[in-house]
Amino acid sequence: MMQRFHAPIVLPCDPACSVIRNGVVDVDDGRITYCGPVTEAPVLRAAVTHLSGILLPGLVNAHAHSPMTLLRGMGGDLPLLRWLNEIIWPAEAKLRAEDVRAGMVLGSLEMLSHGVTTSAEMYFHPDEMAEAVLSTGARVVLGGPIIDLPGFDWRAMIASTERWIDADGLRFGPGERIELSFAAHSAYMLPPEALRRTAEAAAARGALVQIHVAEAANEDEKQRAEFGSVPKLLDEVGLLDGRVLAAHAIHLSDEDIALFAARGVGVAHCPGSNGKLASGIARLADLRAASVPVGLGTDGPASNDDLDLWQEIQLAALLARLSTKDSTALGGADALLLATRGGAEALGREDIGALEPGRWADMVHIEADGFAFAAGLAAPDDQLLANLVWAAGSRRVRDVWVAGDHVLSDGEPVRVDREKAFAAARESAARLR
Amino acid sequence: MMQRFHAPIVLPCDPACSVIRNGVVDVDDGRITYCGPVTEAPVLRAAVTHLSGILLPGLVNAHAHSPMTLLRGMGGDLPLLRWLNEIIWPAEAKLRAEDVRAGMVLGSLEMLSHGVTTSAEMYFHPDEMAEAVLSTGARVVLGGPIIDLPGFDWRAMIASTERWIDADGLRFGPGERIELSFAAHSAYMLPPEALRRTAEAAAARGALVQIHVAEAANEDEKQRAEFGSVPKLLDEVGLLDGRVLAAHAIHLSDEDIALFAARGVGVAHCPGSNGKLASGIARLADLRAASVPVGLGTDGPASNDDLDLWQEIQLAALLARLSTKDSTALGGADALLLATRGGAEALGREDIGALEPGRWADMVHIEADGFAFAAGLAAPDDQLLANLVWAAGSRRVRDVWVAGDHVLSDGEPVRVDREKAFAAARESAARLR
Repeated sequence: MMQRFHAPIVLPCDPACSVIRNGVVDVDDGRITYCGPVTEAPVLRAAVTHLSGILLPGLVNAHAHSPMTLLRGMGGDLPLLRWLNEIIWPAEAKLRAEDVRAGMVLGSLEMLSHGVTTSAEMYFHPDEMAEAVLSTGARVVLGGPIIDLPGFDWRAMIASTERWIDADGLRFGPGERIELSFAAHSAYMLPPEALRRTAEAAAARGALVQIHVAEAANEDEKQRAEFGSVPKLLDEVGLLDGRVLAAHAIHLSDEDIALFAARGVGVAHCPGSNGKLASGIARLADLRAASVPVGLGTDGPASNDDLDLWQEIQLAALLARLSTKDSTALGGADALLLATRGGAEALGREDIGALEPGRWADMVHIEADGFAFAAGLAAPDDQLLANLVWAAGSRRVRDVWVAGDHVLSDGEPVRVDREKAFAAARESAARLR
Repeated sequence: MMQRFHAPIVLPCDPACSVIRNGVVDVDDGRITYCGPVTEAPVLRAAVTHLSGILLPGLVNAHAHSPMTLLRGMGGDLPLLRWLNEIIWPAEAKLRAEDVRAGMVLGSLEMLSHGVTTSAEMYFHPDEMAEAVLSTGARVVLGGPIIDLPGFDWRAMIASTERWIDADGLRFGPGERIELSFAAHSAYMLPPEALRRTAEAAAARGALVQIHVAEAANEDEKQRAEFGSVPKLLDEVGLLDGRVLAAHAIHLSDEDIALFAARGVGVAHCPGSNGKLASGIARLADLRAASVPVGLGTDGPASNDDLDLWQEIQLAALLARLSTKDSTALGGADALLLATRGGAEALGREDIGALEPGRWADMVHIEADGFAFAAGLAAPDDQLLANLVWAAGSRRVRDVWVAGDHVLSDGEPVRVDREKAFAAARESAARLR
């Protein structure tokens, strides 16, 4: 089915962050066939959707544990270890499959309402997470955590993902909405052998490996003593040879960054979580200078505490500037690109994150009628981009499409009953307390 | 006129950041007479307003140049000096009185819609700013900038504020909404003699002096060479003896902080602006440890780029934690107090910033029905506060009262036609480009 979307402003999120005035996006069977000025668009027999604001690609949340919406704010501001030991782990021990589904539905709706169409997820009961995302109509790259703790068997966890991919394929669902991945928790929570086996299983299937890297300064002392650094350890076990997404990646040496660049490792930069937990400031300017693919992540909503990636866009720019003492270290438009095509690149996905022919029509429509856009759409390109990135953010997200399907309309979810989703989450949250 | 407000959650913003369940706030002639549990409230014959969410004091924006809403986003992300020279100053040279009024009306409405009831303002045409704020029903502490530049006469600027205070009084308007102050731009833009004269004029009238202090690392080299530091210079000319609000106050020595503490100097901490411009991170933890009164400010919306003080609450906590490597350096509840009673204290005002008998009934009502509050109002106190501060922010501000007057109702301004205000601002913004 052919569709045409027409908007006064279209941001394809190409590398130059172009602003197209009076633009259209043509979509055939969920994929983009044209994005450009209406004056150069092909003649087309299609239903035309006329929009009044800014049309841009759906944002990519490159690192999340979204079912933790159920635990949001629990324990307030307790120090990290007390918070984990006394609040989060006891609550997670009570998690049932239906809780994860309720929490993921809520997280998925929250992301859609902020214009985030794809998230990379690591959490328990990944089958329930897939069902939840299929129900809201969003897109996800997910994996159940592979971890070495009493009561958990990492071999079984790898095998279970292997079986699932072998049965359903790496990507499935309408518009290929679900991508399966291996989610190795971290080098400090897994023996090298488990990392090696994960790498092999993923490589054999072309699958992504998600892994936490160098988040807290003191988490990996043992690994650093033995291998020099976590990136070196991951390289030694072959994990950097395939598709890898390193979440956080704060405490990296120049050598680590060069290694990531050489191996094409993607990084999920999580400035909000890293700030709230005082983990540190990742070396974003250096990662970008080395051409490491970088996306932005919210991390789990129990610790950050929301799934609004626009706040990470602003924070990425602020922290890059503060840590380099250079107000030009990261411009607003470049920060927006991190949250769109950058996230796609970090995930090793060339089919999302930009409005370009061949990619999925994952799109967001933002009204330009609030305080952020007092100068209106007639403002010059640089002002319009600044207003969007620095002032509007998620405030006026009105519509979202995934693979051309309308999944958020006038700010409300199309496929799921909002009140029922809230009620289910509230019930689960109460039981976990 | 007696009024009673009843809400499931009342946050008085006392020093402990208490959470009152099933609470009421009684108001007589615009001032609070009681705030506490309904069970202990006095018997009262009054109209009762029943609210469904969280009632807390209106936020205090301790440093702003709000008419710059008209210039928001202009010049995009140009480096600071090019941005000022090529974009902002040429635009400001075109400013007419009616532009300032339109910009201030828009800024005032934006702040009300985010639950900010008071702002400390420094900008041209202060008489128009006062009229603008009286029209929206907000509260303001304002002063026209005193500055030494070609075409400006600092003596005349001081005299004009003196005359105004002597004619209308320090505070005037219904609910004493307008407070006049002296707004000395900075030690690097004024000779010591001008600072001394400002201090004398303010002291004679009990007026506040607003002044930018130690923002950019290199702005005050001459003053530091001669006086050791800007705080020492300000002390030498007598400016720290009266009411002073130092905006930014980033590059302070231990001695400077001790001096501020000894003189009771208030600080307006502006983490968002300081980050965006790469000015640095103020020593918030040290300022608080020294008991310096600290509030939060957005700075002007041309550079930050919005007037949403909730973002500064989050940023203040994130940057305090990152700069001290301590995730307990500033809790969410304490950050909220900075934006309420802290701001009032920094401004030397004991009549706003908290819900306490004797203070003005400047109040905000926030619905607790969105994604931020998935656990609902039944969540424990620490979770509820975390949800409000870290996830909800300004998203669900529904009602605002200033001195007991309803000025924002269901998210819409009560006293001003929103569309007319936007149209006037758009017209001014177009002319300034």
